[in-house]
Amino acid sequence: MTYRAPVDDLLFAMTHGAGLGAGLENGLYADLADGMAATLLGEAARFAEDVLAPINRAGDQHGAKLADGVVTTAPGWKEAYARWQEGGWQGLVAKPEYGGMGLPHIVETACFDMWSAANMAFMLGPLLSFGGADALSVHASQELKDIWLQKIVSGEWTATMNLTEPQAGSDLNALRAKAERQGDGTYRIFGQKIFITYGEHDLTDNIVHLVLARLPDAPPGTRGISLFLVPKFLLDDSGKPAKHNDLRCSGLEHKMGIHGSPTCTMIYGDEGGAVGWLIGEENRGLACMFTMMNAARLAVGVQGVALADRATQQALSYARDRKQGKAAGDAGQGMSPIVLHPDVQRMLMTMRAKTQAARLICLMTANAIDISHRAEDAQARKQAAERAGLLTPVAKAFSTDIGNEVASMGVQVHGGMGFIEETGAAQHMRDVRIAGIYEGTNGIQAIDLIARKLTLSGGEAMRHEIGQMRATVAALRATNAPAFGHMADRLGDCVESFVRATEWCVSALASRVPDALAAATPYLRLFGLARGGTGLADLALAAHGLSPDGTDRAHASRVVVARFFAEHVAIESSGLELSVMDPEAVHAAALVLAEA
Amino acid sequence: MTYRAPVDDLLFAMTHGAGLGAGLENGLYADLADGMAATLLGEAARFAEDVLAPINRAGDQHGAKLADGVVTTAPGWKEAYARWQEGGWQGLVAKPEYGGMGLPHIVETACFDMWSAANMAFMLGPLLSFGGADALSVHASQELKDIWLQKIVSGEWTATMNLTEPQAGSDLNALRAKAERQGDGTYRIFGQKIFITYGEHDLTDNIVHLVLARLPDAPPGTRGISLFLVPKFLLDDSGKPAKHNDLRCSGLEHKMGIHGSPTCTMIYGDEGGAVGWLIGEENRGLACMFTMMNAARLAVGVQGVALADRATQQALSYARDRKQGKAAGDAGQGMSPIVLHPDVQRMLMTMRAKTQAARLICLMTANAIDISHRAEDAQARKQAAERAGLLTPVAKAFSTDIGNEVASMGVQVHGGMGFIEETGAAQHMRDVRIAGIYEGTNGIQAIDLIARKLTLSGGEAMRHEIGQMRATVAALRATNAPAFGHMADRLGDCVESFVRATEWCVSALASRVPDALAAATPYLRLFGLARGGTGLADLALAAHGLSPDGTDRAHASRVVVARFFAEHVAIESSGLELSVMDPEAVHAAALVLAEA
Repeated sequence: MTYRAPVDDLLFAMTHGAGLGAGLENGLYADLADGMAATLLGEAARFAEDVLAPINRAGDQHGAKLADGVVTTAPGWKEAYARWQEGGWQGLVAKPEYGGMGLPHIVETACFDMWSAANMAFMLGPLLSFGGADALSVHASQELKDIWLQKIVSGEWTATMNLTEPQAGSDLNALRAKAERQGDGTYRIFGQKIFITYGEHDLTDNIVHLVLARLPDAPPGTRGISLFLVPKFLLDDSGKPAKHNDLRCSGLEHKMGIHGSPTCTMIYGDEGGAVGWLIGEENRGLACMFTMMNAARLAVGVQGVALADRATQQALSYARDRKQGKAAGDAGQGMSPIVLHPDVQRMLMTMRAKTQAARLICLMTANAIDISHRAEDAQARKQAAERAGLLTPVAKAFSTDIGNEVASMGVQVHGGMGFIEETGAAQHMRDVRIAGIYEGTNGIQAIDLIARKLTLSGGEAMRHEIGQMRATVAALRATNAPAFGHMADRLGDCVESFVRATEWCVSALASRVPDALAAATPYLRLFGLARGGTGLADLALAAHGLSPDGTDRAHASRVVVARFFAEHVAIESSGLELSVMDPEAVHAAALVLAEA
Repeated sequence: MTYRAPVDDLLFAMTHGAGLGAGLENGLYADLADGMAATLLGEAARFAEDVLAPINRAGDQHGAKLADGVVTTAPGWKEAYARWQEGGWQGLVAKPEYGGMGLPHIVETACFDMWSAANMAFMLGPLLSFGGADALSVHASQELKDIWLQKIVSGEWTATMNLTEPQAGSDLNALRAKAERQGDGTYRIFGQKIFITYGEHDLTDNIVHLVLARLPDAPPGTRGISLFLVPKFLLDDSGKPAKHNDLRCSGLEHKMGIHGSPTCTMIYGDEGGAVGWLIGEENRGLACMFTMMNAARLAVGVQGVALADRATQQALSYARDRKQGKAAGDAGQGMSPIVLHPDVQRMLMTMRAKTQAARLICLMTANAIDISHRAEDAQARKQAAERAGLLTPVAKAFSTDIGNEVASMGVQVHGGMGFIEETGAAQHMRDVRIAGIYEGTNGIQAIDLIARKLTLSGGEAMRHEIGQMRATVAALRATNAPAFGHMADRLGDCVESFVRATEWCVSALASRVPDALAAATPYLRLFGLARGGTGLADLALAAHGLSPDGTDRAHASRVVVARFFAEHVAIESSGLELSVMDPEAVHAAALVLAEA
């Protein structure tokens, strides 16, 4: 089926759950006033539906091919990239001084949601360029910016991120790639990098690699890593790509999904060293890379949301068409569409509710990033930056776990047809599977949340978040509309489970770190349920306010989705609380897992 | 990595959790006495490890190919099938009068677990032959048995099951294939069947298709369906395959997984009608098919267990080798194997515990089938048949859901390498995905449990099961060993949640059927947690009895696994109870899911 970008749902969630409404009122989002947000999302939706979605299947079937060091993308992809560039979409958030539009991250997040749903594998290329432009604009010298940044922002060239080596994945301490000073301000880069997304392709006539490597006199570990800009082609005097740099793609991975996205092994410096330029200071490369990684983590969370949404749309469409059995109360002739069977309704509602909860968390995170950049008050900026830090691991891990769950359920709704590749449901499940892994596995996100984010400003960031969630529960209780069912009780229990789990984790962190680490994954899930559930409740409260008698179908639907999440998804919380607080059996695992 | 068949774990689970011990004592399993069970499992394990596992990846990569109506299996598969046939494995459970060994289902289940873990796609062929032989031995005339049955039992020919048509999947009422009487005792068969596993292949020189079709004067719906035996080749006077019957494979599905298993579209009767023979009585075909389907449902549950076990083995092996980061308390040099990180330990223990709980439910179901066939007392046979009926949907759906969860977690443990096909972790996840769908989707299983099985003998079957689970909880409380942690409390809560949910469902069934249908899926999950959790606790109690001081590592591990399941998996139960009892939001879904 064709993809339909959920512009209205996105705008409602942005406005009533993620701070767009408040930001329009207080001037934070002055550039989105007068319906500009809707206009932008409408344009981005058309690009997703008309340009990206139609070539998604070709990407899966043909994949990217490597021959003689050259990677060819799937049929139609080069043309689509040309339209991406023409549309100026790569400049969405970059500053106007580098040719960008300077728009807020909440808009980028909503657009990336639609674009990734339409074609996740394609959008990985632009995603890396968003991150590369960001890193250069913050850390690079003016000279490097002048040469490279505008070309990336315009989409004329793409950027990549080169971190991983075979022995250095989650742990960059083990990084070995080398850089040597040349005395002329340039460096020579040597080493092998793996899992490099769009490390080589035919979409543009140059590629700007950002590469982590060690200088000869660097301290060991992550304090001795520097970041270099290493272009595929060195430029001639007129700034045009000319001489091929000493780097090449030596292989493509054969992956479970995102076949359209070339995942490259890159070799630097086989013939004397690839020419590179330092970004930022020597041995401070990891700080530069984190600039890219935080934004990328949110974006990967959005991929989870996007594919969950795509899978839900496709499953719902199939369930409306496919007829099997006779549902109770169906007065129609013959077999009923399976969407009328309660068990299928439960699956589809689970998919819808989980997707929208995860989306809201991603949009909240983007809003916090926007406030951290745009607020006039320094204290407000700091608080927002901490909120973004707190929510980012949840946006990444909770949303991608949900992407996996929902895409698999989408296959299930299709029955046997879901297992047949031509249906397309399986592709979403295969594609989204990587999102829980890359940009820091979901386990790493959970450890980041518990070990670094929980205690930000002495726990103030978390206290603020808990206060907001409790306020939503109080508002639910005060409203007490019959259509809300048990929403207030269930979310109240969920939030209080989360509060107790938080207290337990803070205490464990102080004296029993392995206990806290053992609790990290269920704790993050619990946070996601509480934050997503109360976020959906905010939307339900707004919808109820706009249509108190429930006659507006879109608004009434929002109440049902929030209620379903509270009554059938957030109810995991009591079990998760028990799991968080009971680390002994996790530690005892060593006995079971040791070699016989 | 290589597959290691878990013979000791299987024997322990069979003996102490699934009735093998009692059955050896009371003579039910006289044919397994004197270590015969261990000998058989040892032989089957060697076949799994040495013959089936080595060609699993070739099946995935090469798949089965169709050209000019002929299907060619992957390299090495024909040779492996010859060894399967030589080993006499196809005759494991068939009666000696048809050339079988007549062994009990609990042994078949354990063997099928190992064989499917080694190569699920290969074992689908033999699985269909097990079912076909079963259906023929129960329903076919002596004449048909004499001609066809022994050849299937010996593995010389294979059998297939032809139910599904494009418009008739879960709902066989809509079946259209036709059969016409020929006056000579034969029939002519016409129609198209889809999703026919091993409908065509090169492993044997004949294929015996069992085909559901309607006679011209048949009543509508499932009461007008007959079962026919339709061979690929008609036999000459000496009983050798001679003339090609009027049937052909017109296409193979391109699937997400089990690539080695040919999934065929079959066309019958394009050139005047395929010759077939009636099995059983006219219009009673569905009853015959159910003979195959119940056994097949248990076997599919075992596939879920098998791939979960395979994925766990592979993830554990990777986690022992792969080094990243430094785990607390690791005194070794350099980075730690990731198996020492608490979050990875949590994943691996979740995989192990879920796998073993599901395995136990499958083995319990097989034991109930054995008692239903072998017990001397008619009442005991009836009770056991009802227990098998009650447990079969749980064995099928709970185990295959767990297969999906565990195989996906296996990919996660591998990090980025899990997404790369050559690692093999992704294949397990793709292969097992079908198991939750075929032989009745897991939603259909849940509805079967709630609508047909819950009320067997006025609920007596369920009361008996609940009594057993409560007895285990009482034994845990009485033992109260420190190593048991919170096992008694958590499982006690889980079982009582299940009891309350059962009472709610029985009441709903009586007057509010749509409410019961809406509750089916979480209710089945809750049953699986309670039954699997108390089953693992039975094993823990036995292990504790055998090694009260915990010095035997294998026994101490069993206690840890049972405890982990109770404290970190069964804790889903309180939320599931709430979800079961709250159907309103599921019914309200109609508003959200209706077309705009």
